[in-house]
Amino acid sequence: MQPKIRIGIAGYGNLGRGVEMAVAQSPDMELVGVFTRRDPASVSLLSAQVPVYPQADISQFQDRIDVLILCGGSKDDLPVQGPAMAALFNTVDSFDTHATIPEYYAALDEAAKPAGKTALLSVGWDPGLFSLNRLYGEAILPVGETYTFWGKGLSQGHSDAVRRVPGVKAGVQYTIPAEPAIERVRSGELPQLTTREKHRRECYVVLAEGAEASEVEQAIVSMPHYFADYDTAVHFISEEELRRDHAAMPHGGVVIRSGTSGAGTTQVVEYTLKLGSNPEFTAAVLVAYARATWRLNQQGVVGAQTVLDVAPGLLSPKSPAELRKELL
Amino acid sequence: MQPKIRIGIAGYGNLGRGVEMAVAQSPDMELVGVFTRRDPASVSLLSAQVPVYPQADISQFQDRIDVLILCGGSKDDLPVQGPAMAALFNTVDSFDTHATIPEYYAALDEAAKPAGKTALLSVGWDPGLFSLNRLYGEAILPVGETYTFWGKGLSQGHSDAVRRVPGVKAGVQYTIPAEPAIERVRSGELPQLTTREKHRRECYVVLAEGAEASEVEQAIVSMPHYFADYDTAVHFISEEELRRDHAAMPHGGVVIRSGTSGAGTTQVVEYTLKLGSNPEFTAAVLVAYARATWRLNQQGVVGAQTVLDVAPGLLSPKSPAELRKELL
Repeated sequence: MQPKIRIGIAGYGNLGRGVEMAVAQSPDMELVGVFTRRDPASVSLLSAQVPVYPQADISQFQDRIDVLILCGGSKDDLPVQGPAMAALFNTVDSFDTHATIPEYYAALDEAAKPAGKTALLSVGWDPGLFSLNRLYGEAILPVGETYTFWGKGLSQGHSDAVRRVPGVKAGVQYTIPAEPAIERVRSGELPQLTTREKHRRECYVVLAEGAEASEVEQAIVSMPHYFADYDTAVHFISEEELRRDHAAMPHGGVVIRSGTSGAGTTQVVEYTLKLGSNPEFTAAVLVAYARATWRLNQQGVVGAQTVLDVAPGLLSPKSPAELRKELL
Repeated sequence: MQPKIRIGIAGYGNLGRGVEMAVAQSPDMELVGVFTRRDPASVSLLSAQVPVYPQADISQFQDRIDVLILCGGSKDDLPVQGPAMAALFNTVDSFDTHATIPEYYAALDEAAKPAGKTALLSVGWDPGLFSLNRLYGEAILPVGETYTFWGKGLSQGHSDAVRRVPGVKAGVQYTIPAEPAIERVRSGELPQLTTREKHRRECYVVLAEGAEASEVEQAIVSMPHYFADYDTAVHFISEEELRRDHAAMPHGGVVIRSGTSGAGTTQVVEYTLKLGSNPEFTAAVLVAYARATWRLNQQGVVGAQTVLDVAPGLLSPKSPAELRKELL
């Protein structure tokens, strides 16, 4: 029997908690500990068996962790923490600022390579599984178009934007893909779609005391970049309704490649996610790719890597022979 | 600029013709020739520029072909042709007899490895892209079930079975997935489904002169293995209708992984193909994987390989840096 893959978690928010859950579903892994910048005594895990350590002590764990899963945010945490940790550990992260991926890749590569470590970045579903499907789609059907729709799902960035509006006490925003647009894409007609045609937005808002609903609504729907280019509905609800009906973090979406082969034959490939919990699913993807990261490192593949570089078989605890027999 | 990847096609039926079309859509490839066991003069390609050679002469082309795409059948052609060609060329094939894949893999590996060649087997959509999705699904959501539905599509094996029934002059069979069953799977309820609940079958039959429709229908619907376990409808049509309405070879299907994360959160991943032409799409997959096969061989990865061993990025003509920038 192979020794278990020893996992560490850096950062314990929704994503870190999801990783703890996903490791518990993986018999070939064990969770060594959670590392936090908070007071460890203030962090309570789902499992009482797993210790919590100060992030500042993490360098003492180099011999005890095979892969460190970085659960911080892309904006403030990962740009600094990613390269620092990649010099000490094999790492996996969910860096999702699409525009700066090349720069982040370079920083990780520079840190990980000389240390003989493997740093797998931008793992999750977008970037991640959706990226894979965009790639498979255009490589197999080079003549065609790729469409990505997101939702129905809670968008963190847009929820934050709603909450910054004066008069808003609390609130959430859902991104909703437009079914008529998806149907047109599915039909193979290769439509040109505007931003407004692809998605609409729904906000559930708790008003601050004394705030005027119509003013708040107007401020939201006319907000540039976030809402002005979309059809946006604003619903006013109570704090209790917000807690009761909007605490889950569902998300999902679809990547469609519509292409033509031969003399104009329509071929459509569609990849859909319906996620009860966005952070738990992202965490599940991170954990499967942590397995692959450990194997890549064992094979001597070091430096920065992405999901595009990872052979699918490396994700599974099964042997290549089992996979050929059972899954091909 | 990289030199073009030089492709050969062995066998020119529907699949070989699809490969010719797909290579024409790939600017980084050129088609060296088609090899046939028929009289080359009797084979007319879509492009007049591509020469046709006797299969018997193929060993003279070892220095002129980078990857040979094998377009023969899994039953009679590939078990012999696969290993023979893998000793001479890098090869890609669509071997799809699921039960004997391990044996065929071993035969290819034994032939290809000492020759320093790469032999990629069982490429297409099932086995192939569906296999990948079964793998990603169970690796990411280890607690759950995987469901595969096929169709609506023309099934070659079942069409052959219909045509062997006495009194049948000609005919085709479509496999049709049951929408109510798919809806149950999508909902996350993890149903146990019988064969009859998953698919139904529709036959379009031209009667031979003097044949009795009711007898033919009874012989079809009661045929063990092929039809007895399904709800099967038999429609009698004219030869002209068969030619006019049933000449296309559409197919498709869906792989669904329904799993739970954390404390029972439902997560559903769905991969759907709607194919205007089964052979043209299978050919498109073969051609993308021919690119990967050539690169693997250049990297020194020799012997038998499957889609599970191929990093997604190897399928694309774009560079890793371009892929990271554009697709992640």
